[in-house]
Amino acid sequence: MLVGAIEAGGTKFICGVGTEQGEILEQISIPTRGPEETLKDVVDFFKGKEIERLGIGSFGPIQVNKTQPDYGSLLETPKTIWKHYPLLKHLEGHFPAGMPIVVDTDVNAAVLGEIKWGAAKGKDSCVYFTVGTGIGAGVFLNGKLLHGLMHPEAGHMFIKRHEMDDFSGCCPYHKDCLEGLASGTALKTRWGVDGTELTDDRAWELEGYYLAQAAVNAIVTYSPEKIIFGGGVSQRPGLIEQIQKQTLELLNGYIKKNQITDNIEDYISLPGLGSQAGLKGSLALVLD
Amino acid sequence: MLVGAIEAGGTKFICGVGTEQGEILEQISIPTRGPEETLKDVVDFFKGKEIERLGIGSFGPIQVNKTQPDYGSLLETPKTIWKHYPLLKHLEGHFPAGMPIVVDTDVNAAVLGEIKWGAAKGKDSCVYFTVGTGIGAGVFLNGKLLHGLMHPEAGHMFIKRHEMDDFSGCCPYHKDCLEGLASGTALKTRWGVDGTELTDDRAWELEGYYLAQAAVNAIVTYSPEKIIFGGGVSQRPGLIEQIQKQTLELLNGYIKKNQITDNIEDYISLPGLGSQAGLKGSLALVLD
Repeated sequence: MLVGAIEAGGTKFICGVGTEQGEILEQISIPTRGPEETLKDVVDFFKGKEIERLGIGSFGPIQVNKTQPDYGSLLETPKTIWKHYPLLKHLEGHFPAGMPIVVDTDVNAAVLGEIKWGAAKGKDSCVYFTVGTGIGAGVFLNGKLLHGLMHPEAGHMFIKRHEMDDFSGCCPYHKDCLEGLASGTALKTRWGVDGTELTDDRAWELEGYYLAQAAVNAIVTYSPEKIIFGGGVSQRPGLIEQIQKQTLELLNGYIKKNQITDNIEDYISLPGLGSQAGLKGSLALVLD
Repeated sequence: MLVGAIEAGGTKFICGVGTEQGEILEQISIPTRGPEETLKDVVDFFKGKEIERLGIGSFGPIQVNKTQPDYGSLLETPKTIWKHYPLLKHLEGHFPAGMPIVVDTDVNAAVLGEIKWGAAKGKDSCVYFTVGTGIGAGVFLNGKLLHGLMHPEAGHMFIKRHEMDDFSGCCPYHKDCLEGLASGTALKTRWGVDGTELTDDRAWELEGYYLAQAAVNAIVTYSPEKIIFGGGVSQRPGLIEQIQKQTLELLNGYIKKNQITDNIEDYISLPGLGSQAGLKGSLALVLD
């Protein structure tokens, strides 16, 4: 069986065709513009590909509750031309009636991909933080993706400010929440250069301190078997080691589980699927 | 069918006999001493009561993973005489072989009681914070109690300090985590009087600010249908209204769900079962 996958992002839509084993046979990257133009290219890509299912991991916020009439529609996104756009309904019209199509958040797709084929393979629970322009989190608990009333927005948790940090924070809603202090946007605003050009060790120690708090708060709230940091910022050489080290320092012996204390390099890691996590995860969404 | 319930606390063990409908027919309070003495009184209470099941909601940390050999044993508790004590195994020896006995945390028992018969009746998800000497949290998600690698310890999440607050925090592990800033112990240490005698409005506004952050972090991590604040500190007249108000202020319009924004008094509330939440919840543990 061939399965379609769409990683719907704010700057590009990556579309792919793959197998049930998570092998991607073919893929394309489409720049994100308005919904009509973008989705025309998406539909064109899948023409004649004979996919039998389609999984979509989308930027958000998006309605992921299948019982709601607006399931698969964008919600109050800052990308105004996409606001309330019925992504799922539009796509459904271009595929055979009854073909299974599943929509979830990009981060929920990523965590599911990692659970099926990546760094969290076989685990019953995992939290996946993506640290890029913003910070998002996908959460897999009790063997299922977590939705709840909406879907997690753990990038907006409050954390404690470092006593030497006087940056006010850049989240338009909360100023100094996790995203406001530690996203790529925060790095650029605080230090005046893009994260990719930021070489000051103290800057990356501070980044590690904030992301370690994200890990600690994930541990004490979700008690997951695994934590993954994905997204562009997390790729910074040395950062994941900073997060591992400072997580143990911040926990300070409180949580006595050897899966954490003796195996922090396994417990907190980069994604196993690298840049394909999003696309493979989108494919995984429609396999279960 | 008669069902036994034990709310095993650090200062007292409340034992009860009830029905499958959650009615408590009889109960007793036993002061907590060493394991042998305390449990002798517990076993004596249940003698001749003909219970067919037993649910135990215990102080912790405690092993709640049924697949582990030490299921039902206390872990690294500061109460040293109870450290590693096999609570479940000891009790099993005093009841008919094969009688179902379930052990979970006291806060997981409380949230389950509220889901079955209390303020969260019929909800698919709920977070129950208990604010007393310490701060604990019971979490019900996707229709199940959350365990994970251990069990949630959300009282130890990091939050942001109020800019006017220079109290260093009283958590022996993390200093200024949620428990370190907002537990009953923190109130007493910061203000020099017990919470019950603390009348300064600014003190309770600050308490509301920290507990509202607990609510916000619960919303962005779990996306629950309901949040409950139980425990002695939460009973303070006016505090729950402070938490409701400041939660909306801190969210600052980011989460657009009318269950939260238009119904904050329903969304965040005191327990529906009052002081019986723990005992009824313990009973509920062994009904599903």
